[in-house]
Amino acid sequence: MDIETFRRYGHEFVDWIADYLRDIERFPVLSPLKPGEVRSRLPEDPPETAEPMDRIFADFREIILPGIAHWQHPGWHAYFPANNSPASILAEMLTAGLGTQAMIWRTSPAAAELEDLVLEWLRRMLGLPAGFGGTIQDTASTATLCALISARERATGFESNERGLRRPLVVYASAEAHSSIEKGVKIAGYGRENLRLIKTDADFAIIPAEIEAAVAADIAAGFQPACVVATLGTTSSSAVDPLRAVGEIASGRGLWLHVDAAYAGTAALCPENRSILDGAEFADSFVFNPHKWMLTNFDCSAYFVKDPGALVRSFEIRPEYLKTGADPFVKNYRDWGIQLGRRFRALKLWFVIRAYGVEGLRALVREHQRLARLFKGWVEAAPDFELLAPVPFGLVCFRWNDGRRNEEALNAANAALLERINASGKVFLTHTVLGGKFTLRMVIGQRTTEERHVRTAWDVIRSAAGEIAGA
Amino acid sequence: MDIETFRRYGHEFVDWIADYLRDIERFPVLSPLKPGEVRSRLPEDPPETAEPMDRIFADFREIILPGIAHWQHPGWHAYFPANNSPASILAEMLTAGLGTQAMIWRTSPAAAELEDLVLEWLRRMLGLPAGFGGTIQDTASTATLCALISARERATGFESNERGLRRPLVVYASAEAHSSIEKGVKIAGYGRENLRLIKTDADFAIIPAEIEAAVAADIAAGFQPACVVATLGTTSSSAVDPLRAVGEIASGRGLWLHVDAAYAGTAALCPENRSILDGAEFADSFVFNPHKWMLTNFDCSAYFVKDPGALVRSFEIRPEYLKTGADPFVKNYRDWGIQLGRRFRALKLWFVIRAYGVEGLRALVREHQRLARLFKGWVEAAPDFELLAPVPFGLVCFRWNDGRRNEEALNAANAALLERINASGKVFLTHTVLGGKFTLRMVIGQRTTEERHVRTAWDVIRSAAGEIAGA
Repeated sequence: MDIETFRRYGHEFVDWIADYLRDIERFPVLSPLKPGEVRSRLPEDPPETAEPMDRIFADFREIILPGIAHWQHPGWHAYFPANNSPASILAEMLTAGLGTQAMIWRTSPAAAELEDLVLEWLRRMLGLPAGFGGTIQDTASTATLCALISARERATGFESNERGLRRPLVVYASAEAHSSIEKGVKIAGYGRENLRLIKTDADFAIIPAEIEAAVAADIAAGFQPACVVATLGTTSSSAVDPLRAVGEIASGRGLWLHVDAAYAGTAALCPENRSILDGAEFADSFVFNPHKWMLTNFDCSAYFVKDPGALVRSFEIRPEYLKTGADPFVKNYRDWGIQLGRRFRALKLWFVIRAYGVEGLRALVREHQRLARLFKGWVEAAPDFELLAPVPFGLVCFRWNDGRRNEEALNAANAALLERINASGKVFLTHTVLGGKFTLRMVIGQRTTEERHVRTAWDVIRSAAGEIAGA
Repeated sequence: MDIETFRRYGHEFVDWIADYLRDIERFPVLSPLKPGEVRSRLPEDPPETAEPMDRIFADFREIILPGIAHWQHPGWHAYFPANNSPASILAEMLTAGLGTQAMIWRTSPAAAELEDLVLEWLRRMLGLPAGFGGTIQDTASTATLCALISARERATGFESNERGLRRPLVVYASAEAHSSIEKGVKIAGYGRENLRLIKTDADFAIIPAEIEAAVAADIAAGFQPACVVATLGTTSSSAVDPLRAVGEIASGRGLWLHVDAAYAGTAALCPENRSILDGAEFADSFVFNPHKWMLTNFDCSAYFVKDPGALVRSFEIRPEYLKTGADPFVKNYRDWGIQLGRRFRALKLWFVIRAYGVEGLRALVREHQRLARLFKGWVEAAPDFELLAPVPFGLVCFRWNDGRRNEEALNAANAALLERINASGKVFLTHTVLGGKFTLRMVIGQRTTEERHVRTAWDVIRSAAGEIAGA
């Protein structure tokens, strides 16, 4: 494809993207296709010769698009959001066009220095302690794995890096902590048995005294406690672990404290939410995802550490072919994580922060919180619905309950209700289980979600509940 | 930013990207900026209020661009390439516009099924064994870490996942293997001491008998051998380990065989290069990077495994909030690697394979190999230069040698020569050390590199050598 053909299709694609963003409400949120339907429409063998872009683009629209779940739809209330924005999409275009691979400073100084800068911006925007060093990871899963590796190395005096892990080390997290903790514990070689899932209180926040008791029991049993994870905004219910109390235990016991604020970190842009970070000075590592609730295209996870030297020591490699004269004077982010190769992700963060300004981003968070409180009010006021968890941010956990069924029947009814809601094509909600109760999760966090969309969602939910009740 | 503003800037950005690709030869390959220069031109504090896109874009052009190393420049002969293509950039635009997060099948069926399909296309295109299952990882570092985790779990009967790693396990790789092996060994908890760097022959390929001897010695010493890595196309010199011989040892000893073909895998598109894969049936895992030499924007690494079930068992997590009714019928790629969240990377691979066709991709590889042989011929014919390694693909390893200096002086002279070459701004080469000799690496692998560019590079090199010789 020559440059002028690229230019022509580039313009066509921009118009398509703009139209898609404009018309996104016309699509069903979820793809209605069954497993295998997309693949069955595509040839099993790759083409031997070049195909024209017209045909490829047509197949994209006719075969791929019907199989897409529309994450940017204003009715997307599932999981946590992965919202994006026009400014972020524009930056991703430049990133793709440049084709820069930012593994070390020399392979694009601007990428390294902009990453350094925007992470410092984010640190200030959240009010994290001065001196914390930041880097962009792809996902919170990767950042959490980095934290678990760093904790392992601190607990063994870097012996696992050098001689191999030989002894049982223990990790503590709330029973509501994200699955990436369990995954990281497996990958880092701690072993799943050595992850203690600590009891939570009625609001699903970790109970500090239970951590203390578990640590003492482990020490008595000959295990070595290594790491504790505090979650700010759990995945199931956005519960907030008491950071200061957990931090004091970590500090007193010499444990690595990792803070998983993947979702709720963005809320701390607003001073009125900042209290969730009280105790952040105890953190050894902290992660939050601008790709969730801060308008930055997935993937973009901000990872901060108190001691960058310890991070680098765990991940550093120094092959001859990567040495440069600039090494003593620069940050080579290849040593700040798992991957050697790195996309130029700082550009989209820089575009987003500048295009919205900190006030613009705060306004978005505040509007989502307002809409969540509004929705919460409707749930509380409805006789056939009940709220199942506090609503500190944009997530409302609730269920339908007509007061006439036992827990088992309620679970079945709410599972059926959820299917019916999602079959509407207008909204997409997901579920969790809280204290044994099948729970509907309504997350408000899309850039384009307005009050009318939340009202529509509530209408869809009540209408589906009416059908369930009558069934 | 509203949709119409996005549309306007989208068009402006497309024109900018097209012009950039058209005019890329006018830029110096490397940024001339010193450490700190980019950052010093940017404000330390994030903006409180929104800034207009005109200003952001102007800053991109005036502050960021001068700090970019131009990876797509036809004079980029450094490291290995990370080439892209107009088709790949177009696909990345759509990926960014959709803002899909492809963690599980349900969160975009088309993304999961297209990934399944294009990895099967790649398997066929390379002639890898039937039945190998593929997934897209971000980088070969991550894929290699996945392989090392899988090897660890097989060696311990999944005990490290469950109870934690408690015993020394050993990994074998050539002394020329990529630094990601060492990094992965640290991360996975093997410990760097338990990585045996096996001697290579005169062509820098691993010596199978040396692996056999090391394995026997480790067993005698009470260590448990777990994994052997064969490299097809080492980073320093693109040496090819004898896969069949290594595979027979792995098979005989019950070791996990990981094949790192990050760079040279693409060469196997051409039947005449296919012999490097002889013995691939022994591989438990295999990685190659379409983002290196197959015109697909970074990041896109293709990871194949013989037994997907074993991979999934090492990485699987099943939290309530991710369960869906489709789970028994689909591939949920979250369980095929470290990250939960995943970009829709299959789209760009699909665009590239279709836009070029398999023949088009082969033609590119063949042209690069032809140019590399041409350059090799010039080096061999020049009295003051010498070839330092075989040239199986697109990399030529050489040095200047006037026959009048000892090794130490030659190393210093070639380091100085490299600096002088790169200061030209016309080309960018990097170095390695082979057998103690400071080695210049000339890689030919850019989409836009033509014979005239290779001739220019040789002129720059000879001219710089003339200055060194006279100094």
